[in-house]
Amino acid sequence: MSISGYTPPFSPRGKAGIVPSPPWHYVGNFLAIDFLTAPDAVAVLLPPGLTPSHDHPGHCTANFVDWQCVTDSGEELLDPIRSQYHEFLLLVHAALDDQPVMYCPYIYVDQDTSLIRGLIQGYPKKYGSVYTTRTFDSPSRAAARLEAGTTLAGTLTVKDQRLAEGKVTLQHTTDATAAFGRAPIITLRYFPSLDPGYPPAVHELVRMQPEDTHISTVWQGDAQLTFFDSPTEDLIQLQATHILAGYRYTMALTVRHSQVVRRLG
Amino acid sequence: MSISGYTPPFSPRGKAGIVPSPPWHYVGNFLAIDFLTAPDAVAVLLPPGLTPSHDHPGHCTANFVDWQCVTDSGEELLDPIRSQYHEFLLLVHAALDDQPVMYCPYIYVDQDTSLIRGLIQGYPKKYGSVYTTRTFDSPSRAAARLEAGTTLAGTLTVKDQRLAEGKVTLQHTTDATAAFGRAPIITLRYFPSLDPGYPPAVHELVRMQPEDTHISTVWQGDAQLTFFDSPTEDLIQLQATHILAGYRYTMALTVRHSQVVRRLG
Amino acid sequence: MSISGYTPPFSPRGKAGIVPSPPWHYVGNFLAIDFLTAPDAVAVLLPPGLTPSHDHPGHCTANFVDWQCVTDSGEELLDPIRSQYHEFLLLVHAALDDQPVMYCPYIYVDQDTSLIRGLIQGYPKKYGSVYTTRTFDSPSRAAARLEAGTTLAGTLTVKDQRLAEGKVTLQHTTDATAAFGRAPIITLRYFPSLDPGYPPAVHELVRMQPEDTHISTVWQGDAQLTFFDSPTEDLIQLQATHILAGYRYTMALTVRHSQVVRRLG
Amino acid sequence: MSISGYTPPFSPRGKAGIVPSPPWHYVGNFLAIDFLTAPDAVAVLLPPGLTPSHDHPGHCTANFVDWQCVTDSGEELLDPIRSQYHEFLLLVHAALDDQPVMYCPYIYVDQDTSLIRGLIQGYPKKYGSVYTTRTFDSPSRAAARLEAGTTLAGTLTVKDQRLAEGKVTLQHTTDATAAFGRAPIITLRYFPSLDPGYPPAVHELVRMQPEDTHISTVWQGDAQLTFFDSPTEDLIQLQATHILAGYRYTMALTVRHSQVVRRLG
Repeated sequence: MSISGYTPPFSPRGKAGIVPSPPWHYVGNFLAIDFLTAPDAVAVLLPPGLTPSHDHPGHCTANFVDWQCVTDSGEELLDPIRSQYHEFLLLVHAALDDQPVMYCPYIYVDQDTSLIRGLIQGYPKKYGSVYTTRTFDSPSRAAARLEAGTTLAGTLTVKDQRLAEGKVTLQHTTDATAAFGRAPIITLRYFPSLDPGYPPAVHELVRMQPEDTHISTVWQGDAQLTFFDSPTEDLIQLQATHILAGYRYTMALTVRHSQVVRRLG
Repeated sequence: MSISGYTPPFSPRGKAGIVPSPPWHYVGNFLAIDFLTAPDAVAVLLPPGLTPSHDHPGHCTANFVDWQCVTDSGEELLDPIRSQYHEFLLLVHAALDDQPVMYCPYIYVDQDTSLIRGLIQGYPKKYGSVYTTRTFDSPSRAAARLEAGTTLAGTLTVKDQRLAEGKVTLQHTTDATAAFGRAPIITLRYFPSLDPGYPPAVHELVRMQPEDTHISTVWQGDAQLTFFDSPTEDLIQLQATHILAGYRYTMALTVRHSQVVRRLG
Repeated sequence: MSISGYTPPFSPRGKAGIVPSPPWHYVGNFLAIDFLTAPDAVAVLLPPGLTPSHDHPGHCTANFVDWQCVTDSGEELLDPIRSQYHEFLLLVHAALDDQPVMYCPYIYVDQDTSLIRGLIQGYPKKYGSVYTTRTFDSPSRAAARLEAGTTLAGTLTVKDQRLAEGKVTLQHTTDATAAFGRAPIITLRYFPSLDPGYPPAVHELVRMQPEDTHISTVWQGDAQLTFFDSPTEDLIQLQATHILAGYRYTMALTVRHSQVVRRLG
Repeated sequence: MSISGYTPPFSPRGKAGIVPSPPWHYVGNFLAIDFLTAPDAVAVLLPPGLTPSHDHPGHCTANFVDWQCVTDSGEELLDPIRSQYHEFLLLVHAALDDQPVMYCPYIYVDQDTSLIRGLIQGYPKKYGSVYTTRTFDSPSRAAARLEAGTTLAGTLTVKDQRLAEGKVTLQHTTDATAAFGRAPIITLRYFPSLDPGYPPAVHELVRMQPEDTHISTVWQGDAQLTFFDSPTEDLIQLQATHILAGYRYTMALTVRHSQVVRRLG
């Protein structure tokens, strides 16, 4: 008898690990808000190896997402507390070797599996309480149908402090490539040393390589976005100076592996 | 200046009450499982004035529901923590003056507004953690699409004890009237006296009068349902002896008022 | 076989009711902050039958409490999710027939049993997330020992909006009668009619009659208290104009019954 | 301007990182249960470099802990959602180079900061809901005073499945060295590669080096402990064959750094 798993805790039946082995299959409803902020506020957040975007300085996307995620077995669908979580994901435009990329400085989720799965991939996840308006295909005031005139909202709260509120009023469907399709996402995979005085044990830029990506019809509309201050978070330093547009779509993707593009000092 | 509201706490701006004034507009995704249990186990749960169903003895429906609920203003959609909750709803067949009715002996939700709104209407709500598989219209293993072969699940946990697990494997759409349409729902509206030795302050049978009901296409399929024991709950006494069928549908309704049908001693 | 219980749901083994039958035995750690606010802001909150306090106009106490509560059997201590909750309790000075009383316009808890037990007694409880600094008798920076110089804090968050923050820096023990001993607490026991156009089904002033009250040594010190706005709550209208003092103590009490002092219209 | 922090996310004001830089000062109330299980069930959980204990084969300790944890600034005490969490910690006896050590195969907490702080130190933390009976120095049935005859309980629930229940009936104080003092704790610090087919990025045995440890009076008594099965967890394979004793004590400690004792393949 032996123990197994992709991550600790390793266990005899091999299913206790906080994150199961990839591939991971995701599908989620996105409420995405494109906005501009002070370019310097974005630039300061970039890790070594990334430079500010020339074409899109200060351009960010805030995403409120309802996710469902499973492994190949799909067994998580049968005990849905294991497959569901909510996420606030901030992406900023940047450049890697003069090529356009997106980078994630802040991200919050409400499930431990997602927290560590993100950490492994280079997403700096923390816990947050994320809510988004759901849509139902039903003639009810409560339904928030996907149609022109409906307003959808997302909220983020971290350690009992409201941090972000976004709203999108749907206007029309669009062919615009939504946030995830614009450029590859680069993350900072990082695991500290035991002693803060020493270099990190893992410190590298990673390129996400999503597969089998599928995006639904995209709804576009006017949007609002407000960030609030807190004793610990610095999201407010990215307060929008101009809102570009809001989007609502469903996206599916599979992650099998990612690629280390640069090891940092 | 004065205070106002439908329920306490009454406040100057009138919006602090735990439940806002009706009408209440609901829409929800139902995972419903029809089953038979020992008729005596149902009969014992009926309040004065209700008798066991002659046509459907021991017939029950367990519903796992994802709800969104708003008032006329619809403002709750813009701060979705206020509009969303999950519910486990058990309904049993019974009779009132020889007319078929449904009665709710047990129900669990995860939001305080819903808890008290239910109490006012005669639903004996307690807190529970309810999860149901979500469906997305996307070609992903994670999507649990509404199509033949997909299995959807629901779970109920009360005070950290798993109480119920249900599964439905979708097979075909159906014209079958789903649980809510079969017969009127009768509830027991009850508010105790301050002193347990005295009769309750409110004790009456109430007939629900949903308006503007709309039910989507109904998917039907084979189902499984298991109840578990706990130190306090008696749901297990309704353990299924035979599973009839499972359903998945979206239902919308509005509640403006209900009708007291009998005052009890 | 029959069903029993003090509150719904009534069940065969009689333990499913959301609130067990009294007596209820409570013990809790209080962080209490005495403060003055605009007398009119208090006066508007008083129900029929209560008048503003002549001696203490605008005098309020905000309490952040960690509670443990059991029935005679004490079995809740063996499954502590059933016995523990946190509470934010606001009390204001008022008068009933020229006698000094305390009245509770706002109160928040994080457990369903406490929510309904409060409602039965006339406390207008809603759900809130309440945290208070814990104290340990240990020589650690983390211990927040009960000694001069230690600062203890309490926070209240309702539906993901921070509503209140309080701090007390302990200075000395005191013989001062703490908030609960000053005057009897009067509550508004209220259960609405099914139809908002009709008078409430229950509407009465109730006098709390705690028994076996025991208060520990009381620590007193300087305090701070800030209320924040929210889309629904009106706590901010009681913002302190002057902070009187803060207290920290442990209190135990038993509730066997309460007394209706006046039936309202 | 630049970003800083011990862990991601790195931010301008340097406080957004999920784990602040050590030192970390902890104090917690322990409910600890010593028990024996099948030695093979322990042996299989040991990582490379650790061998089964010769003197204490199959000897384990289950700990239910209420923690408060701060950095040097102590500011977390003023926003206590940041300083408090609950933990279930399982320790097993083992040997490193023939020296007695304790090893942690399973541990659950309810706070993200603690989750990642543990991961950095080699504790395989997952989220769990942990409750323990609190004690108050008050003459109340609810108080669970620290005195002979009082029974204290702890429960663990993971993803809505109850996993462990423990009870200790206090009998007498003791000089017995409690679990943490028996032998150094060795953990497995582990961070996976991005690709499951490659060796882990970090894989090493670490020796905990707690400083400024302080243990209160230790209460000892008879104990009970039951583990339950779940779809993912393997805790049940360590089901007790014999309960040795239960303990209740308060412990404080500070972690400044730990020591890598062996890098694994």
